[in-house]
Amino acid sequence: MADYRAPRDDMDFVLHDVFNVSADWQQAEELADMMDEDTATAILDEAAKVAENLIAPLSRAADEQGVSFTEGKVTTPDGFKQNFKQLAEGGWVGVTANPEFGGMGLPKSLSAQYEEMLCSADISFSLYPGLTSGAIMTLDLHGSDELKQLYLPKMASGEWTGTMCLTEPHAGTDLGIIKSKAIPESDGSYAITGTKIFITGGEHDLTDNIVHLVLAKLPDAPAGTKGISLFVVPKVIPNDDGSLGEANSLSCGSIEHKMGIHASATCVMNFDGAKGWLVGEPHRGLPAMFTMMNYERLGVGIQGLGAAERSYQNALEYAKDRIQGRGAKATRDNNAEADSILVHGDVRRMLLTMKAMTEGGRAFSTWVGQQLDRAKYGADEQTRQQADAMVALLTPVAKAFLTDTGLESTIHGQQVFGGHGYVREWGQEQLVRDTRIAQIYEGTNGIQALDLLGRKVCGSQGKLLEPFTQEVNEFLAQMSSKHDWNAERAQLQQALDSLNGVSAELLQKAGADENIISAVAVEYLHLVGYVCYAYLWLRMATVAEQKQAEKPYLGAKIKTAKFYFARILPRVNALVAAIKDGSESLYLHDEDEF
Amino acid sequence: MADYRAPRDDMDFVLHDVFNVSADWQQAEELADMMDEDTATAILDEAAKVAENLIAPLSRAADEQGVSFTEGKVTTPDGFKQNFKQLAEGGWVGVTANPEFGGMGLPKSLSAQYEEMLCSADISFSLYPGLTSGAIMTLDLHGSDELKQLYLPKMASGEWTGTMCLTEPHAGTDLGIIKSKAIPESDGSYAITGTKIFITGGEHDLTDNIVHLVLAKLPDAPAGTKGISLFVVPKVIPNDDGSLGEANSLSCGSIEHKMGIHASATCVMNFDGAKGWLVGEPHRGLPAMFTMMNYERLGVGIQGLGAAERSYQNALEYAKDRIQGRGAKATRDNNAEADSILVHGDVRRMLLTMKAMTEGGRAFSTWVGQQLDRAKYGADEQTRQQADAMVALLTPVAKAFLTDTGLESTIHGQQVFGGHGYVREWGQEQLVRDTRIAQIYEGTNGIQALDLLGRKVCGSQGKLLEPFTQEVNEFLAQMSSKHDWNAERAQLQQALDSLNGVSAELLQKAGADENIISAVAVEYLHLVGYVCYAYLWLRMATVAEQKQAEKPYLGAKIKTAKFYFARILPRVNALVAAIKDGSESLYLHDEDEF
Repeated sequence: MADYRAPRDDMDFVLHDVFNVSADWQQAEELADMMDEDTATAILDEAAKVAENLIAPLSRAADEQGVSFTEGKVTTPDGFKQNFKQLAEGGWVGVTANPEFGGMGLPKSLSAQYEEMLCSADISFSLYPGLTSGAIMTLDLHGSDELKQLYLPKMASGEWTGTMCLTEPHAGTDLGIIKSKAIPESDGSYAITGTKIFITGGEHDLTDNIVHLVLAKLPDAPAGTKGISLFVVPKVIPNDDGSLGEANSLSCGSIEHKMGIHASATCVMNFDGAKGWLVGEPHRGLPAMFTMMNYERLGVGIQGLGAAERSYQNALEYAKDRIQGRGAKATRDNNAEADSILVHGDVRRMLLTMKAMTEGGRAFSTWVGQQLDRAKYGADEQTRQQADAMVALLTPVAKAFLTDTGLESTIHGQQVFGGHGYVREWGQEQLVRDTRIAQIYEGTNGIQALDLLGRKVCGSQGKLLEPFTQEVNEFLAQMSSKHDWNAERAQLQQALDSLNGVSAELLQKAGADENIISAVAVEYLHLVGYVCYAYLWLRMATVAEQKQAEKPYLGAKIKTAKFYFARILPRVNALVAAIKDGSESLYLHDEDEF
Repeated sequence: MADYRAPRDDMDFVLHDVFNVSADWQQAEELADMMDEDTATAILDEAAKVAENLIAPLSRAADEQGVSFTEGKVTTPDGFKQNFKQLAEGGWVGVTANPEFGGMGLPKSLSAQYEEMLCSADISFSLYPGLTSGAIMTLDLHGSDELKQLYLPKMASGEWTGTMCLTEPHAGTDLGIIKSKAIPESDGSYAITGTKIFITGGEHDLTDNIVHLVLAKLPDAPAGTKGISLFVVPKVIPNDDGSLGEANSLSCGSIEHKMGIHASATCVMNFDGAKGWLVGEPHRGLPAMFTMMNYERLGVGIQGLGAAERSYQNALEYAKDRIQGRGAKATRDNNAEADSILVHGDVRRMLLTMKAMTEGGRAFSTWVGQQLDRAKYGADEQTRQQADAMVALLTPVAKAFLTDTGLESTIHGQQVFGGHGYVREWGQEQLVRDTRIAQIYEGTNGIQALDLLGRKVCGSQGKLLEPFTQEVNEFLAQMSSKHDWNAERAQLQQALDSLNGVSAELLQKAGADENIISAVAVEYLHLVGYVCYAYLWLRMATVAEQKQAEKPYLGAKIKTAKFYFARILPRVNALVAAIKDGSESLYLHDEDEF
């Protein structure tokens, strides 16, 4: 496998040349003093070193070794403990945590780049700090001051990690039917009892304590999703001074043996009257989880992006080195018996598809990160509300589209390797196996699509689409005629119009056809994804034209934009046709006719 | 994982109701006496028992155990040796072998069904008899009488297995640059020296002998693909009476550790002056291999089909059993807290996509099998030539389209399982891992696409498309107006016209643009695939309408046809648009701009 090299130039291009994020930072009270372009560059340069030199080199061996489970204890692969310690000491576990509790407090547009690097280096490893970040954010937003003082400094420093305990054996997507119970105790705590499955990092040997955030039902809980409460349930109960006290009544029952992310411990967690403390209001556990969900969803999307970038780097190195077959006359090396396979059209098609989707994906994740930052730090209410609306629309797309196209990119990369792509030693097939989970967990991509089309687009009567449509239309209008992109402008306009056309059609149909939303939601989400990437590719291309004199490597950006419009965007034709068909053909079969 | 149940009804429907293969058999001298519908039914019923009860139950454990390698010896998973023996004793290793040497001599349309069942049961296991069949056919077609008498009875009976040794470390797709040498010896044999990689079943413990078919170059060989000869090189040199003599100078150097097909031994084979015998003419090894390649390609395609069928069966059982979330009002069970996930549109979309592609795939593989049979057994020269032309056109499609859509189906099936689809114990992720290789080996799917568009379509100046176009047009013309399929007829006509339109356009472009073929070949192959399936789905639907009174389960067939036209066929829109773009966008980037 090629050594991982963080795509730092492209990250800087996207952050500063395309999205000018420093201007946003300068307007944000919390960020103005701490964050500017130079600081961001220094931070990402350091992050790149961590990903390249500390994390990436262990990934292959860690996949082979995997995590092991003996008598309730999980052992992580060789080197993980040291690496996690070093990561924590560098402040990289608390990158997004509140500085009040010792975190770095990075804006998401920036931390998205760090997360991408970590995922390119090793998705399995990235999950330990990744879940901890999510737990930190949830506690920070909803925990009492007492809980925050007790837990957050230890978590932000990486001394303790965090988990999210949602899924139960009978209930994943449908959390309304969970069975875990929380019984109030006289000391203000709760006794938590129940079984949770698929708990990432539920047990491990990286740190001395693990802080579980657990969904459970209080005795007086209403049925369904409105009766779920959130609790913090530590593996070891901390004393008031933060030192470790008694072990809690919880244990890891087993770990899953999975297709991939072998180095990540996916645990069955048994809570047996474990001591827990309520986070936020009773019965308001789901909304509490959802406040950090937009960040988590983008984070999972970035797993797909990170894997795609790695796949591209590996496949490109292989394609340049592999000498086989002859190119067409124009590309042939006449002194050689064979050419590098990079001369072949189909190899170029696979590489450019990866490149277009990865660079487009990086722009997309950064754009969504910028919207998250504006929603949080925006100088005025209108900015924050507008950004919030964009976040609502785009986060399900970020989660699902980045992971669906991430899997596609890892599969293309594997195909470039031919038979070697199937052999573990080359590292390429691991990317396919590790990426596949990102389409499933944190809400399957089908659920993301339902959220997008059902709750967001139809739920707002189409209003949530308007700021997006307006932004793209304004951009198209602003593109001056000196740009040589008339064909692509027309393509983007047409794709956007198609999106708005089918959206209006679906809104109309949804009244009479209760099946329509779930019948076409996935195709609809992909349509939104391709339109977003088309917008971002055209934006990048025009910026690249302006900056090319100063940064000659941007010539490639312009060429890849051409490729995206020529070969990738046409996929919307198939999506629009399928969406227009509606739900009828999905509901012809009776259950026994499947 | 659901117990595997062979789709016997659908196989009979396709064989007899749709393609009326018995009529072909009755006209073939070699088959008329041995093969009719009842015999075929009896054979497939037995084959189903073998696949369901003997092979399928071991698959999951065999994947976990894998093959092991110690001091040159390969040990297959527990139970494989007994199962292979039982398979051999039932005559199932020699199903397609020449009856003159003890084979069953089944026509391909029929053996395709058996192969599908075996692949649904366990792709890894299926490769041991599968490669043996290919070796038998090659020897039968090109070996001297002496070689055939010595080897074929032992191979057809499954006492010995066979391999195909083509790939070398530096050369897979491009066999013209292989380095293995064959030096003539005074006794008429050759001393074969070289290293071959990715040799399926190169070494194992199932049988006492393994017969390698090895490509190597004679000392006077011309450069390139016209200087390759084919040799039979046994692991143990047989005495004239077929008893085992001396060990040959060859060994297995190592086995690959792979993403999937863990129970199949993928070997590095070292030939160190091993004794071999020429098969066919000197320097004519590649053409000799290619005569059996059409059968092999369909066989590999069927691996994708078998996995897709298994994926569908598993996912359907899971979807029916998994109670979670609420359906829309019309589908909701009002007495339950939640419904089976089969009520959800997106789950139905995934299941029906699998169903449409699997049943369409079975019709396709059977149709191609029928063409192979007509090319071999056809009563007159014209029949044989016409069929031969169809085979030339369709076999690359069968290999690549059945495996590309096979992977898609295994991924959909995994997604239906949610998190459980990622856990090994459920068996679903194994299907993804096992299927993935079928897109790569026996000529990558990119190479199949080049063969289709370059050698076949453009190479024939479009002539090879004509019989196919004619068949579909005749079918469309014959569909009487009483059929309620006007919309679908128009869709098929339009898709066919698009295919012919882009074909003509590509033929014209190919003169001036030497990159065009490899630039759009994969999209072109997929376009042909979707058009073929549309034709076959409409054919099946009209037959199902006629037979529905007698076979009520065919009602589902009609509904699935509707689904195919509504939701799958629109994919051609994207493919046509991408093909029309041509090669330009793939050749903008210089090597250092990737």
